[in-house]
Amino acid sequence: MKQKIVTAALVIIGDEILSGRTQDENLNFLACALSEIGVNLKEVRVVADEEQEIIDAVNAVRKKYDYAFTSGGVGPTHDDITSATIAKAFDDVLVKNEEAAEILLKYYGMDDMNEARMKMAYIPSKAKLIKNEIFSASGFLIENVFVLAGIPKIFKAMFFGIKQEIVGGQKIKSQEIKISLPEGAIAQVFAELQKKYPQVVMGSYPSDNGTSLVFRTVDYAALDLAFNDMIGVLRKIQSDPILAVLKSH
Amino acid sequence: MKQKIVTAALVIIGDEILSGRTQDENLNFLACALSEIGVNLKEVRVVADEEQEIIDAVNAVRKKYDYAFTSGGVGPTHDDITSATIAKAFDDVLVKNEEAAEILLKYYGMDDMNEARMKMAYIPSKAKLIKNEIFSASGFLIENVFVLAGIPKIFKAMFFGIKQEIVGGQKIKSQEIKISLPEGAIAQVFAELQKKYPQVVMGSYPSDNGTSLVFRTVDYAALDLAFNDMIGVLRKIQSDPILAVLKSH
Repeated sequence: MKQKIVTAALVIIGDEILSGRTQDENLNFLACALSEIGVNLKEVRVVADEEQEIIDAVNAVRKKYDYAFTSGGVGPTHDDITSATIAKAFDDVLVKNEEAAEILLKYYGMDDMNEARMKMAYIPSKAKLIKNEIFSASGFLIENVFVLAGIPKIFKAMFFGIKQEIVGGQKIKSQEIKISLPEGAIAQVFAELQKKYPQVVMGSYPSDNGTSLVFRTVDYAALDLAFNDMIGVLRKIQSDPILAVLKSH
Repeated sequence: MKQKIVTAALVIIGDEILSGRTQDENLNFLACALSEIGVNLKEVRVVADEEQEIIDAVNAVRKKYDYAFTSGGVGPTHDDITSATIAKAFDDVLVKNEEAAEILLKYYGMDDMNEARMKMAYIPSKAKLIKNEIFSASGFLIENVFVLAGIPKIFKAMFFGIKQEIVGGQKIKSQEIKISLPEGAIAQVFAELQKKYPQVVMGSYPSDNGTSLVFRTVDYAALDLAFNDMIGVLRKIQSDPILAVLKSH
């Protein structure tokens, strides 16, 4: 029986990424982490900290993919508008989540608790709280959208907290051949191989000392056939252009 | 007279970014480089190497922003579908650009020239060739869309080749205060300051040893006022929470 292909998108809410002040780290982490559990990241959008931009992006991707993730904007300051904006995107309202309020109170203590910090206890009424080990900020799950913090270590902690909620599909397996030839030298034979194995996605990426040929698919039998076929073809072109072979990563 | 705010978007065409194989570097470079010439990067999309995804993303952003940039997919292999796809997005066709063909021939020499490499000489009929110092791959400009290579060093070289074609607007100036207090401790006063200076975008970003408060605007007078106001406010909260002040970057 054929397993389902499960897809996801990430919306990065981040003026600081768009201004160049901060280099994003969440995209690459999420891509790898999802891939391990059989979910294909199919699209990423980086949008400004502006209500309409966030609503449009989240509404577009949550309908198109099985899961959507957002990163950023769930802290205590006035520029943290993600929770309120996601509530709007779902025609929902923010309500105080008592469990989140308790966690926040315990984290800060009565003396350091204030209105701004308590803002983090408000999540959409239909949402489920996401807890994490290292910080009190509240992420949440609403329908198929995971709303996570932007700070990489908190984003990661939240992701590990919700990983078990994600139902993955068949894992894409990937194999790679590193060769000493430039792309243009193998383009024709590579294209012919792609035509022969349409169920395998073949990509070629120039590197400093040649080219990486990457094979990706959920059809593991076809993957091995295509991969071995290419190795055979490469050995015929020139005496051993193969620098390395990376199987099943 | 008020200068125009000029906006841009980037579409990263990259299965290898979405799979987690490669960490993107072009977003951060472009954000900083555009900011220096008075262009605000407002949105980024990362899409798969799939025709319809690329067409939809490029058509959405080219109509919404002053400029759009794409990165990736302009090489010689079968998975390099950007040029043909952009032609489709503009209802245009690919034609052989004689100047590009000449450059390619000179670069590879007659003996190493082949059909796959010559594919890089084909750009949309309405496009203008973008040359670069380090590689023969052809980028191009069509209407307000710059189509650039994905490899960071070539992306950069192409960007510097077309920089003079971009008409920037007023530069956003940015100032930053690094403080030893956590976000939640200054959230209220920071929000009040934001209300007082609505023309300044104020963002707060947690760091390992406290918080960074970032002020961004094209209204330089308001920037200085807001910035100095916040410094005054901070000095009143606690004895010197200010760790560093970064002006006009």
